[in-house]
Amino acid sequence: MPSEEFTAFQAAMAARPAPPPVSSLDEQRRRIDEAMGALPLADGTEAALLDAGGVSAIECRPVDLPDDAPVLVYLHGGGFRIASALAYRAYGSHLAKALDGRVLLVDYRLAPEHPYPAALDDSLAAFRWVVASGVAPSRVAVAGDSAGGGLAASLALRTLAEGPAPAAVVCCSPWVDLTVTASTYETNAERDQLFSRTSAEEAAPLYLAGHDPTDPLVSPVFGTWEGAPPLLVQVGGIEVLLDDARRLAEVASAARVDVTLRVYPDMPHIWQMSYPAFPEAVEAVAELVAFVRRITS
Amino acid sequence: MPSEEFTAFQAAMAARPAPPPVSSLDEQRRRIDEAMGALPLADGTEAALLDAGGVSAIECRPVDLPDDAPVLVYLHGGGFRIASALAYRAYGSHLAKALDGRVLLVDYRLAPEHPYPAALDDSLAAFRWVVASGVAPSRVAVAGDSAGGGLAASLALRTLAEGPAPAAVVCCSPWVDLTVTASTYETNAERDQLFSRTSAEEAAPLYLAGHDPTDPLVSPVFGTWEGAPPLLVQVGGIEVLLDDARRLAEVASAARVDVTLRVYPDMPHIWQMSYPAFPEAVEAVAELVAFVRRITS
Repeated sequence: MPSEEFTAFQAAMAARPAPPPVSSLDEQRRRIDEAMGALPLADGTEAALLDAGGVSAIECRPVDLPDDAPVLVYLHGGGFRIASALAYRAYGSHLAKALDGRVLLVDYRLAPEHPYPAALDDSLAAFRWVVASGVAPSRVAVAGDSAGGGLAASLALRTLAEGPAPAAVVCCSPWVDLTVTASTYETNAERDQLFSRTSAEEAAPLYLAGHDPTDPLVSPVFGTWEGAPPLLVQVGGIEVLLDDARRLAEVASAARVDVTLRVYPDMPHIWQMSYPAFPEAVEAVAELVAFVRRITS
Repeated sequence: MPSEEFTAFQAAMAARPAPPPVSSLDEQRRRIDEAMGALPLADGTEAALLDAGGVSAIECRPVDLPDDAPVLVYLHGGGFRIASALAYRAYGSHLAKALDGRVLLVDYRLAPEHPYPAALDDSLAAFRWVVASGVAPSRVAVAGDSAGGGLAASLALRTLAEGPAPAAVVCCSPWVDLTVTASTYETNAERDQLFSRTSAEEAAPLYLAGHDPTDPLVSPVFGTWEGAPPLLVQVGGIEVLLDDARRLAEVASAARVDVTLRVYPDMPHIWQMSYPAFPEAVEAVAELVAFVRRITS
């Protein structure tokens, strides 16, 4: 059963007036930035815009940053076409505080203006900038949610060939199969209010722009995972992406990767971002942080 | 890659002289009890034989047991036909120390003398004895490895109908499908030195004694898991039982159970019991303990 706090949170969300329909992707992006970008930072943290190897990023960190703190490169969700580092700034500050480390929110380029491989190139450039700045790869993890979870997984695959690899990878409610064939698109269609076959089929072609959806660098469930770093996959049981998460854990574990799959049965897509509003979000962030700290320490 | 300590441990095990062949199940049981029962307890712990509701058991506990300590009812492995609470006494004492709680090793009756449901009846009787002694079910977890992992899962299913249920269930390298049809019996046959299709096909009929192997109370992957308590499943990537573990996580998560599946890629069957000999065993026990403490606190 979900917590009472979660149920109350969902009820409060459902009671809010519906926003007017958006007329364009730009308007949708602007609204998200305005609403989410205005959320306050976690107490005792600061955030700064910076140039991460030619890619815009926001770094969130505790004001009193410990020496040799771990770094989490974080790739936001939004179907490769909406949201931003700014929209994730408040969440990133909470992650930085919980981790007691730096969280680098990468403002990767968005589709359709910039289809594959722009987002992955930018994510990789930002990761490499962290390493080039002198942080050992063993102290750098990569995480992301939804489309950003897919980017984190794709980045892991690309660094297998091109090195250096991050120490750990965290995929939260990840979208890792752009063929959009998972059976949970149907079985969880009624329960998932945040992602759907319709959203996926609208977003995927913008990012792919004709690229093969079975390329492991856009759909990492088709990848060769041998030698990949430890992987944590979190997913809600009512998500249409439940199968994506399961299959990612399956292919990685078949390739002898250290894999943890955690299914939070009653949680919706990217519930982690509601931290610290209800216990399941607190638990998910605690699990993410404990995993990153264990691997990077 | 496995740790250097694990590799050295495996090499030392392989270098030991092979024991003479056993002439009977009784002799095999006696040897296991002599060898494993002679292992020292963890420092600062004690162990006592007791009658747990008509079932013999060994309780392991820290000498300085905290008030209101959690209780872990532990069901040993051995294919339902060998091993004992005595054989697990040293391991149980390590678990009790790591948990800072009580570990009750249940000496359930063995096949073929006592086929299904004797082992499950005894396990359930011991669990109920703990609850009847005044420990809230919310403070009692059930765990087991191999056949004992299957018993832990079966116990969870039986308590769904009959109540009260344990707070949490941990299945380590569990054997949860007595139809012995998992594909990893073939794909991991060469790598798994501790369990095999041959062992499974020898042990299953002794326990089943004609009982239907698809009964969820002997093969909990066929069970109805709705409403079951949080479940942690640990498995090594080179086990023939890898698929059993994956399928258990799959059916439980499909039933909206809070499930964590952790695949330790290079670990063999029941590596956890070698605690604290190498880091992967230390990590697995730490994960088990953190899970039990989180749910029972």
